[in-house]
Amino acid sequence: MVKYDPKQWLSLILHTYSRQVMKTLTPVSIVMLLYTTLCCYLYIDVFELHLNKFQPSVSVSSILGIVLGLFLVFRTNTAYDRWWEGRRLWGGLVNSTRNFALKLNSYLLKENHEDRAWFAAMIPNFVFAMKEHLRQGVQLNQLEHLDEKFNEDLKKYKHKPNKISALLYERVNQLYKDGVFTGYQLINLDKELKDFIDLMGACERIKNTPIPYSYMMYVKKFIVIYIIILPFGFISTSGYYTIPIVVLITFVLMSVELIAEEIEDPFGTDLNDLPTDTLAERMKDNVKEILL
Amino acid sequence: MVKYDPKQWLSLILHTYSRQVMKTLTPVSIVMLLYTTLCCYLYIDVFELHLNKFQPSVSVSSILGIVLGLFLVFRTNTAYDRWWEGRRLWGGLVNSTRNFALKLNSYLLKENHEDRAWFAAMIPNFVFAMKEHLRQGVQLNQLEHLDEKFNEDLKKYKHKPNKISALLYERVNQLYKDGVFTGYQLINLDKELKDFIDLMGACERIKNTPIPYSYMMYVKKFIVIYIIILPFGFISTSGYYTIPIVVLITFVLMSVELIAEEIEDPFGTDLNDLPTDTLAERMKDNVKEILL
Amino acid sequence: MVKYDPKQWLSLILHTYSRQVMKTLTPVSIVMLLYTTLCCYLYIDVFELHLNKFQPSVSVSSILGIVLGLFLVFRTNTAYDRWWEGRRLWGGLVNSTRNFALKLNSYLLKENHEDRAWFAAMIPNFVFAMKEHLRQGVQLNQLEHLDEKFNEDLKKYKHKPNKISALLYERVNQLYKDGVFTGYQLINLDKELKDFIDLMGACERIKNTPIPYSYMMYVKKFIVIYIIILPFGFISTSGYYTIPIVVLITFVLMSVELIAEEIEDPFGTDLNDLPTDTLAERMKDNVKEILL
Amino acid sequence: MVKYDPKQWLSLILHTYSRQVMKTLTPVSIVMLLYTTLCCYLYIDVFELHLNKFQPSVSVSSILGIVLGLFLVFRTNTAYDRWWEGRRLWGGLVNSTRNFALKLNSYLLKENHEDRAWFAAMIPNFVFAMKEHLRQGVQLNQLEHLDEKFNEDLKKYKHKPNKISALLYERVNQLYKDGVFTGYQLINLDKELKDFIDLMGACERIKNTPIPYSYMMYVKKFIVIYIIILPFGFISTSGYYTIPIVVLITFVLMSVELIAEEIEDPFGTDLNDLPTDTLAERMKDNVKEILL
Amino acid sequence: MVKYDPKQWLSLILHTYSRQVMKTLTPVSIVMLLYTTLCCYLYIDVFELHLNKFQPSVSVSSILGIVLGLFLVFRTNTAYDRWWEGRRLWGGLVNSTRNFALKLNSYLLKENHEDRAWFAAMIPNFVFAMKEHLRQGVQLNQLEHLDEKFNEDLKKYKHKPNKISALLYERVNQLYKDGVFTGYQLINLDKELKDFIDLMGACERIKNTPIPYSYMMYVKKFIVIYIIILPFGFISTSGYYTIPIVVLITFVLMSVELIAEEIEDPFGTDLNDLPTDTLAERMKDNVKEILL
Repeated sequence: MVKYDPKQWLSLILHTYSRQVMKTLTPVSIVMLLYTTLCCYLYIDVFELHLNKFQPSVSVSSILGIVLGLFLVFRTNTAYDRWWEGRRLWGGLVNSTRNFALKLNSYLLKENHEDRAWFAAMIPNFVFAMKEHLRQGVQLNQLEHLDEKFNEDLKKYKHKPNKISALLYERVNQLYKDGVFTGYQLINLDKELKDFIDLMGACERIKNTPIPYSYMMYVKKFIVIYIIILPFGFISTSGYYTIPIVVLITFVLMSVELIAEEIEDPFGTDLNDLPTDTLAERMKDNVKEILL
Repeated sequence: MVKYDPKQWLSLILHTYSRQVMKTLTPVSIVMLLYTTLCCYLYIDVFELHLNKFQPSVSVSSILGIVLGLFLVFRTNTAYDRWWEGRRLWGGLVNSTRNFALKLNSYLLKENHEDRAWFAAMIPNFVFAMKEHLRQGVQLNQLEHLDEKFNEDLKKYKHKPNKISALLYERVNQLYKDGVFTGYQLINLDKELKDFIDLMGACERIKNTPIPYSYMMYVKKFIVIYIIILPFGFISTSGYYTIPIVVLITFVLMSVELIAEEIEDPFGTDLNDLPTDTLAERMKDNVKEILL
Repeated sequence: MVKYDPKQWLSLILHTYSRQVMKTLTPVSIVMLLYTTLCCYLYIDVFELHLNKFQPSVSVSSILGIVLGLFLVFRTNTAYDRWWEGRRLWGGLVNSTRNFALKLNSYLLKENHEDRAWFAAMIPNFVFAMKEHLRQGVQLNQLEHLDEKFNEDLKKYKHKPNKISALLYERVNQLYKDGVFTGYQLINLDKELKDFIDLMGACERIKNTPIPYSYMMYVKKFIVIYIIILPFGFISTSGYYTIPIVVLITFVLMSVELIAEEIEDPFGTDLNDLPTDTLAERMKDNVKEILL
Repeated sequence: MVKYDPKQWLSLILHTYSRQVMKTLTPVSIVMLLYTTLCCYLYIDVFELHLNKFQPSVSVSSILGIVLGLFLVFRTNTAYDRWWEGRRLWGGLVNSTRNFALKLNSYLLKENHEDRAWFAAMIPNFVFAMKEHLRQGVQLNQLEHLDEKFNEDLKKYKHKPNKISALLYERVNQLYKDGVFTGYQLINLDKELKDFIDLMGACERIKNTPIPYSYMMYVKKFIVIYIIILPFGFISTSGYYTIPIVVLITFVLMSVELIAEEIEDPFGTDLNDLPTDTLAERMKDNVKEILL
Repeated sequence: MVKYDPKQWLSLILHTYSRQVMKTLTPVSIVMLLYTTLCCYLYIDVFELHLNKFQPSVSVSSILGIVLGLFLVFRTNTAYDRWWEGRRLWGGLVNSTRNFALKLNSYLLKENHEDRAWFAAMIPNFVFAMKEHLRQGVQLNQLEHLDEKFNEDLKKYKHKPNKISALLYERVNQLYKDGVFTGYQLINLDKELKDFIDLMGACERIKNTPIPYSYMMYVKKFIVIYIIILPFGFISTSGYYTIPIVVLITFVLMSVELIAEEIEDPFGTDLNDLPTDTLAERMKDNVKEILL
């Protein structure tokens, strides 16, 4: 995620989009420039169609423009909602790790260094495992290795964050059976353990479910058709002014779709993705500060 | 559900919609092509109405176009919300099965193979029963049959997922009465059992409740009326250019409605439906990995 | 509620709206037909105002049309949200009755026929009482009468669903005092009893609170003013073509408002209302199947 | 709140808005009538500017009209959401008072008249105190005075609903300490007591937080600027027809803002405010019927 | 936050925006004034381009205007939602502090002055620490210092609100271990302690996560491009009237973006920010009134 000052207009206007957006936007703009120039040349100078009585109407572009605008906003809302829900979920994880650590801190004796150290390592382990699980897969070297057995167990397990959660559940329940936690405290701790799994599952849902294929096809088809027919609405009244008009509208419409693409899977390492690395580090610091 | 890369413009633009959408879209486009050609021919060449002083105005199409656009977005939002809520519910089921398994895993002794095996079979059974219950009806061969009695009981029961849930509730409560679970653990387990029923009920709601009949009629009537009057707004200024204009707008407007139809009942086996088969398998794997 | 196949375009386009919508729509369309004809006749043939230099502008209708369109979508969203929230609440009731029955089933001994029979009668009683409470008032003959006293008590009570809920609360608590339920089970049962009251209260809210009077006046006034001034925007350019234009726009705009009226109080017996009768029967069947 | 039948078009169209809306709407409409007449007179008859080559364009009004329309819908949504959230909260209070009374009824012995009477007085006291606390301040004469001490205590306390809530919390806890309620019952009762405070706090939030000052200024400035420049878009093509056009658009746009003003603080005694007096009476009746 | 009467139109229209908005709005308006004048002069008087056959079309501004309008509403909604969610969270804090104090008040003996005083100081300490934590950092002099150790501990801790929360958790748990609170009461108190952390975490989320960089760039770029091309749509038909038209539209569009900037980080001390200082004081008063 880029940190920026939303009040710096100049820098925001003059900077270009991320490389990924430009990679599609630049060639498309150039193609549309050439295509529109060709249209104008053929229409006006070669066939002199602008002298005909009947002309294609700019009304088509107006009517479709409104409908397209509405769909682009639908697209933007959807992508933004996914991004913001992702952020909410990670914010929820910050809260749950803190609450879990705070509860453990008040339930465990100050001198119970062993259990404190174990939880102070294992809670961040869950977070780091989840972070990479939402990318290409858990990276074991990011985790704190408590003993050899932990290492071995984790390797065998397919769904690694589940395993860490299982260890947390087991330890909490063992301490309850040992009389370190009372039943009332068990109930209070259960809320946070449940939250860990719920939050991870919701992130998996966002990651694994793009918007329906048909809508994605529809929006992209609509944009392309729209900019292809665009020149004909303007040629007969605006002549060669049509060229900058078409390039500009192409730029405005394509940008929306390309930005939405960047935003909608927010757990990666793109420019606009959520700062899950930073958040995970912060959680680690918080938990360690509370428990140790 | 189709897995696709949202950043592949070319493939998304060039592929056609699903067979079901095309089945309606193709004939309608052809009919509109012929109808508009006929209109133009009669208007311009036969009756020469375009020479009259008074002309039908394209403003009608503009005004109605905006209103129609707003309703199509309403339609799209509604259909998408149903689809996304369905996905949320199945995501919730993933979470609840995991949490339930994780809690059981920590509460049951490692050597208690009998109970572990029973739950590791019955939790996925609930999921698979629910999946088919949302289609044509539970398929008993998808379930793991623990003993003859289970099989018999299930056949007699009308609402099969309810029966499986009843078995889960009973087993948990029996273990509580036997002292395997404490009361505090019972309270923690109750949350997940309740979730199972709540999630299934919410899916049933989506499946059994299409959007109100009147709205469905209204949107479809509006689209049809709109494309029928469309040619008259363009004929007098655009002549035979009206033909591609009308076909194009028909294509854009009909697509929205046809895609919405495909999305709004998301538990079937259509191209855009939710991957409930895959999700059910994943839950089975997760639960078995945790409990066994 | 009408069951229909959303993919049957022909039948949806050719059927008329419900009788209630047509009762207003037909006369209004006829009045507008006559009114517009008169306007055209006076404007063009009598006073020949279309030859004047200054003409009323269709831009007024365009600008107001967009604003009106936005408000009709607001109106539609509001009405639909009320309908869908009503459906959600009844779906919640399905879930709560199931969960309550499932919990009771696992907590009560199989041979405890008396309590099982009592709950299997009283839970559906609550549902049936609530259903009619949201219409004209509870119909005692729809309830299962367990003994004379129940009958008498209910007659004296003003808010009948409250009384049934009180009986449920009392019986559960009595069984807790008698040691049939433990305290942990009491906590689990309490969630469902609370849900019953919350769901009923939310339905009462929807039923008793129409959208604010001023908004209702505003939308209706706006529609009427809009269609009254509509002819003047078209007369000078479209002449007698104005007549079908006005009738068509009237039809489109009035429909929205009339459908919204039908949808927004969803607990009645209108064509588009929720199928609460069917749902209540289904709950009864479910509860009896689980408990008996 | 006005009770009305949303299906009575005639009465809704012919009635005027509330006095408060008309107080602003009438003078503004008259001013705009005079202002537009003056504009037309100066433009057409005095300076004859309509004969110039360059004319102000109606496109400005079109473009700004759409943007303004979108903001008016934003304004309407915001105001309506506040109103509806207020209604939800009071509906929640109905539910919580009922649940609290039902639970107490089942937990307290039938013959425990003293505690029953105390709660039957104090729950409605909380509701009535909260109702007036959201207006000008708690009116002690609306409360049921149980003894002198209650009266005295309340007078000294600044935040009176808090005091009543404190009394409820204390009594419940005292009965728990005395063994009348068990710990499990205490947990069940705690939910409702928490709800009381949460619901009151949320109502305070709506009451004390108008929409941000800058947005309020922006919307009002925008409307005024819009109607001031409106005549110039129409004068050159519509001449004196501009006068009714401007007055009509003024009426439509101003109404939205004025109605939103009326709706957004829903706890007062305006025509469109929530019927909190009726609701409070209904809660009192319900609670007394349940407990006594 | 500015307290104002939303019904005072005159004062709202005549007051200027906050200094910060004007700081950008004024120079931009002046630049656009000069730029448009130059455009008109060059176009009409120098090059006499308005006599050409082909003219740039106002349709471009219309089509893009609608799309831009939709995005500005998206921007406004997003900013307003952040602001309102912030308000909701602080309202939630009001509720949680009250509930926590009310519960403590009923659980602690009246004569237990020591614990009461400690909580009556520490709950507001959490609120004040959180308030400044959301600005530049906790200001220790705003907190009530109970003893030297508290002071020392807090200084060493990096995340100060976490430390205060840890103290609250510890004290509550200590009192539970000492038998002052029962396990049931511990469960009830746990809800509020959890809320404190959840609410703070959600506020941190809003503060630390601006809307995605790409969207911010897009909206700002779009506005600037839009107003730069704006004159060319009007010059050929409206001549020098273009100047006021462009300045006006610039003013309307820029305002939206500038206000959104002000609203979206609501915890600072800007004119439109939330009154967190006032709210914190009110919570302090409430808690002290309840507990002491």
